[in-house]
Amino acid sequence: MRKYAIIGVGHVGATVAYTLVCQGIADELILIDKNEKKARAEQLDLQDTQARLDSHTTIKINDYSELADTNILFVTSGNIHALDHASGNRWAEFEYTREIVQDIAPKIKASGFHGVLIDVMNPCDCITYYLQQATGLPANRVLGTGTFLDTARMQKVVGENFNVDPKNVSGYTLGEHGESQFVVWSTVSVNGLPIEQLAEERHLDLEDLERQARGGGWAVHSGKGYTSYAIATCAVKLSRAVLDDANLACPCSCYSDKYNTYVGHPAIVGKDGIVEALRLPITDAEEQKLAESAGFIREKFETLPAVKQEV
Amino acid sequence: MRKYAIIGVGHVGATVAYTLVCQGIADELILIDKNEKKARAEQLDLQDTQARLDSHTTIKINDYSELADTNILFVTSGNIHALDHASGNRWAEFEYTREIVQDIAPKIKASGFHGVLIDVMNPCDCITYYLQQATGLPANRVLGTGTFLDTARMQKVVGENFNVDPKNVSGYTLGEHGESQFVVWSTVSVNGLPIEQLAEERHLDLEDLERQARGGGWAVHSGKGYTSYAIATCAVKLSRAVLDDANLACPCSCYSDKYNTYVGHPAIVGKDGIVEALRLPITDAEEQKLAESAGFIREKFETLPAVKQEV
Amino acid sequence: MRKYAIIGVGHVGATVAYTLVCQGIADELILIDKNEKKARAEQLDLQDTQARLDSHTTIKINDYSELADTNILFVTSGNIHALDHASGNRWAEFEYTREIVQDIAPKIKASGFHGVLIDVMNPCDCITYYLQQATGLPANRVLGTGTFLDTARMQKVVGENFNVDPKNVSGYTLGEHGESQFVVWSTVSVNGLPIEQLAEERHLDLEDLERQARGGGWAVHSGKGYTSYAIATCAVKLSRAVLDDANLACPCSCYSDKYNTYVGHPAIVGKDGIVEALRLPITDAEEQKLAESAGFIREKFETLPAVKQEV
Amino acid sequence: MRKYAIIGVGHVGATVAYTLVCQGIADELILIDKNEKKARAEQLDLQDTQARLDSHTTIKINDYSELADTNILFVTSGNIHALDHASGNRWAEFEYTREIVQDIAPKIKASGFHGVLIDVMNPCDCITYYLQQATGLPANRVLGTGTFLDTARMQKVVGENFNVDPKNVSGYTLGEHGESQFVVWSTVSVNGLPIEQLAEERHLDLEDLERQARGGGWAVHSGKGYTSYAIATCAVKLSRAVLDDANLACPCSCYSDKYNTYVGHPAIVGKDGIVEALRLPITDAEEQKLAESAGFIREKFETLPAVKQEV
Repeated sequence: MRKYAIIGVGHVGATVAYTLVCQGIADELILIDKNEKKARAEQLDLQDTQARLDSHTTIKINDYSELADTNILFVTSGNIHALDHASGNRWAEFEYTREIVQDIAPKIKASGFHGVLIDVMNPCDCITYYLQQATGLPANRVLGTGTFLDTARMQKVVGENFNVDPKNVSGYTLGEHGESQFVVWSTVSVNGLPIEQLAEERHLDLEDLERQARGGGWAVHSGKGYTSYAIATCAVKLSRAVLDDANLACPCSCYSDKYNTYVGHPAIVGKDGIVEALRLPITDAEEQKLAESAGFIREKFETLPAVKQEV
Repeated sequence: MRKYAIIGVGHVGATVAYTLVCQGIADELILIDKNEKKARAEQLDLQDTQARLDSHTTIKINDYSELADTNILFVTSGNIHALDHASGNRWAEFEYTREIVQDIAPKIKASGFHGVLIDVMNPCDCITYYLQQATGLPANRVLGTGTFLDTARMQKVVGENFNVDPKNVSGYTLGEHGESQFVVWSTVSVNGLPIEQLAEERHLDLEDLERQARGGGWAVHSGKGYTSYAIATCAVKLSRAVLDDANLACPCSCYSDKYNTYVGHPAIVGKDGIVEALRLPITDAEEQKLAESAGFIREKFETLPAVKQEV
Repeated sequence: MRKYAIIGVGHVGATVAYTLVCQGIADELILIDKNEKKARAEQLDLQDTQARLDSHTTIKINDYSELADTNILFVTSGNIHALDHASGNRWAEFEYTREIVQDIAPKIKASGFHGVLIDVMNPCDCITYYLQQATGLPANRVLGTGTFLDTARMQKVVGENFNVDPKNVSGYTLGEHGESQFVVWSTVSVNGLPIEQLAEERHLDLEDLERQARGGGWAVHSGKGYTSYAIATCAVKLSRAVLDDANLACPCSCYSDKYNTYVGHPAIVGKDGIVEALRLPITDAEEQKLAESAGFIREKFETLPAVKQEV
Repeated sequence: MRKYAIIGVGHVGATVAYTLVCQGIADELILIDKNEKKARAEQLDLQDTQARLDSHTTIKINDYSELADTNILFVTSGNIHALDHASGNRWAEFEYTREIVQDIAPKIKASGFHGVLIDVMNPCDCITYYLQQATGLPANRVLGTGTFLDTARMQKVVGENFNVDPKNVSGYTLGEHGESQFVVWSTVSVNGLPIEQLAEERHLDLEDLERQARGGGWAVHSGKGYTSYAIATCAVKLSRAVLDDANLACPCSCYSDKYNTYVGHPAIVGKDGIVEALRLPITDAEEQKLAESAGFIREKFETLPAVKQEV
C-alpha cells in the first residue's frame, strides 16, 4: 500500500494532502503539525471531502511513529511566517525554518523512517541538505523540489511568449531555489527547436523572459500571501515518480559530489529517489553560474551549527 | 467546450479553481475577484501548475463579459471575513455578504449569463435565492450547495461510528445550511440497512451523531480559519452533474414552491440545473422541522430590501 | 508499492490491465497468459500507451514467482472459449474453465502469493470457491466479482426506466452470477425511495425490469462476442476497495457459512478482502431464492473431484 | 458541453469510447457502426460500466444526425478485416477501407458536422486526406493519428534501451503511418541530450532501435490480432488538445502544402484542430526521406477515383 506523510500542513502541506486525496493515490496519509487543531481541521475537511469522491484514503494525524513504514514523507513546515515579502529573499525564512528543521529532523530519525523524503521547506537546497545529514538517510533518498518549480515557471513564461502549451517547452532552470538560480537557455527548446535561435528570429530577449519567470513566484506571493498550487503539484509529481519507479528526468534539489552540497540540477527520479544525476552539456558560462549558486548554498549551509553535532 | 467562471477567489473559490484545473474538466476558466492582485496571483499559480499536469485549461481573470457564454458560474465571495467564529452562526456573515451580492448580481445579469449558477456564499439559501431573483435567471438554473456539504459531514460521522466508507451511508440532511438544518434520520441507511434500527441495536444516540456532524464544520473552521476542501468538492460535483447531464440525486439549496423560498432539499441535478425536486416520505415531525427551517430562511430573505427593486 | 497481477489476458484481463495503467493506480503489473505472444503483445501495447499518459506502470509478463509479493491478483482466464452463446448458460464454460483452474491454482499456491485474489472466471462462484480451496488462502482473501456486475446492470436498467443516474439506484442482485441470480427488490431504492412503491405508482413491472437486467449481459455477449468494460470496471473497483482499505459495501461472491459455499451476497470489502458479510433484512421468499441459488452452486462445486485432493 | 462521436466501434473505436467514458471527459458520446448489434452491445457495456464510475456520459448509437453539433469525430472503421498480417503492409487494408470511407464520408458531410475530425483508419494519411476532401471540411479541422503512435513506439524503445521513462524521450517519427515512415534522429533527445551522441558513446545502433520501434506495432498485431490501447490513447490525447485548446506540439497526419498531401509531420494542435505546422531543422537526407514518403502517399491517394467526383 502507498503510505504518505506530511510534516507541516500550512498552505503547501494542506494542498499536497488535498491533491493526494483527490487523485486517490494515497492509501494512507499522516498529517503532522505543531498546531494540533490545524492538523485535526485538515483531517476533518479531507474526510468530509471523501463522501464526494470515488476513492478512499485513511487519514491520521500527529503520530511520528507512523513514519516507520511510510513510503513518502513531505516536509513543508514554515513556508509562510517570517518570509520577507518586500525583499523577495527566501533566505529571510531561514532564521525561522532553521529552528523548525532542527526540531523535526531528530523526530524523523527516531521514527525509523526509511522511505523517500521530499523537502519543500525554504531555503530549499540548504534545508534539504540539513535534513539528509540530520536524518542520516542515504543522499539518494532525500531530495528537494528545488528548481522543479522554477522550471515550471520558466516553461509557463516561454509558453506564453511563444503561444504554446508549457508542456511543449523543455529545458532546465538550475542552481539555488532562490535568487542565484538561472535558466540554462542552451538546454531550452520550444516544440523541439532551440529557443536561442527562435528568440533571435522573433527579437525576444531571453533575459527578459528569465526575469518574468523569476518574478512569477513573487507575483503569486505578493498577490495571495503564499504560493501553493504549483509547488504542491511539483511535489506530488516527484512522489509519483518514486512510487511508480518512473525514472523521470527532472530538475530537483539533490546532492552534488562536485559542489559538495545540495543544489538544483537534473536527475533521474525513481524507486529509490535519485537514481542518478544527469550530466548536461552546458556552456562554460552556465557552469560558472552553477558553481557560484552551489557555493552560495554551501556557505549558508555551514552556518547551521547543529548539523555537525547531529551526525 | 466547457467554460467555467468563479466569482470570488478566496479559499473556497481558489480551491474550486484548482480542482477544476487538476481534474482537467474545464476547457476555459474565468476568475473574478475585487482584489485584482489576488485574482492574478491565483491565475499565475494555476498556470505554473499546468506545466506539471497532463491537461490544459485556459485561464482568464476579471472580465464579466466572459460570462455571456459560460456554462457554470460559481459564486463564492466573502466566505471568510466577518464570520463570527465564536457564535458559530453563519448569519453573522450576512451583514457582509448581503452587500457583496447586491454588487455582483447586476453584473452577472448585465453579462448575459444564461448557464447554471452554483452559489457557495453564506448564508447559502438566502443568498442563492437573492441571486436567482436579482439575475432573473429561471429558478432551475440557480442552485446553492446548501446541505450537500452537511450531508457529506453526516455521512462521514455515521461512517466513522459504524466503521464503513461514508459512501456506504445514504440519506439526507435538509433545511437551512445553518443552525436550523437537521438530519432526516428516517432516510438514512448504512450498507442498505435503516440506521434507526442499527443505532438501537448498538446503543448509539442519533442526536449525538447529529451533533458531531453539525460540529464538524465548526471544528474545521476554528482549526484552519475557514473550510475549503469538502465544500469545493461538493460544488465541483454539482457542476459535473450539470455538464454530464447526470440526473444525480442529491440534497442542495433549490427553490421550493411549498415554502416559497430556497431551502436544502433533495433534487435531481442535470443539464438544466434542477431537473426536479424529489419528494421524500418523511415523518410529520421532520416535515415540521423543514417548515420551520424554510420559514426562518424566508424571513431573513425578506430583510433584503434591494431584491424587490432589482426584479 | 501497489503490485497487481492478472492471470489470463483475454478481453477482460486486458481491459483490467488497460484500466489500471490508465488510472495510474498500479505501480507494478504482471501479466500471465498461456499464450506467451498474447501476453507480450498486451505488454507492448500498454507500454506504448504510457508515452501518452502522465503516469508510469512497470509491466512484466509470465512469471509466477512475481506473485509472491503481489497485492492483488485477478484471475480472468477462459471467459470466452467454449461459452455457449446460444443457450445463455454460463455453466457451459465450466467444462473448459474447470480444467484451467486446476492448472493455475497450484501455481498460485506454489508462488507464495498471500495478497487478495479476485476471481472473474466463470462460473464465478464455483471457480472462486475452488480457487480458495486449492490455494489454501484464507476465505476472506479470495472473492469473486459475482453479482457486483449484475447489480450494476440492475442499476442501469432501473436508472433508465426512472430516468435517473444508475448511481441513484441502491440495492442488490444476489445469488449465483448466473441464471439463478435474483434482484432483491425489497432492498432497492431509487433516489432514496423504495422501488416497490414507485413501481406500483408508475405501473412498472419489476419482473420485467429484472428480465431486462438479466438479458443485458447476453445482449452485450451476443453483440460483441464477450463482455469486457463493465466487468473490468467492477473488478478494478473491488481491488481499489482493498488497497484503499475502503470498507466498501457491495455485493460480490464470498464464502457463506450458512450455505457452505461461495455465493453472491453483500459484504464489506477492505484491506484484508472480505471484512465482514452483511446481513440483510430480506423477505422469506427472497431468503428461499438465495438458498436455492447457493444450493445449486454447491452442487456444481462438488463435481470438481480435484479439489479435495488438492487441499 | 463536450460531444464526441465515433464511427466504427471495432477494437480501436470501442477502446476510444471506453477511455472517454472512464476519464469522464465526454458529456455525450455517439457510437456509429454498420453492425447495429455491435454498436448496441458496446453502448450497453459502457452504460453498465457507469454504475461503477464517478462520472456520467450520455451514450447514443447509430444516428448520423447527431454529428451536426458534435465537437470531435473519430473515424475508426475497418482496422482489422482484410489486413494482411503476413505481409505487414497497411496498404493491404486499403482495398477494404477505401470502400468504407466512400460510404461514410458523404454521410458525415450530409450531417452538417463542423467540428474536428480525427481519423484513425488505415492507411491513415491517405484515408485522412480523402476524408478531408470528401467532407469538404477545412484542412485544419481534419487530422489523422499518423505517426503520433509511431513516435510513442519510438519513445518506448528508446526509453527501454536507455532505461528511462518514455516521456523523457523527445523527438519525432515522421512520414507515412506505414512502411516509409522514419525516425528523425536529429530531433531525438534523451533526458535533454541528443541521442546521436549518446548512442555513439554507448555503441547503440540507431537503425536497430528504429527496427525495434517499427516492429513493435507488428508484434502487437501478431500477438493479439489488432492494436488498440496505444492507438486509442493517442487519439484521445489529440482530442483533448483540441477541446482544451492546448496548443500541443505533436506529430500527426496533417496537410502539407509543400508535398500536396496529408503526411505525418509535427504540428500544433488546438481549438481549431491544426493550428500550425511546425518547421523542423532536419537534415537534407531526412528531408529526402520525407519527400519520398509523402510522394508515396500522394500516389496512392490518386488511385481513389471517387474523390474528385465528390468535391
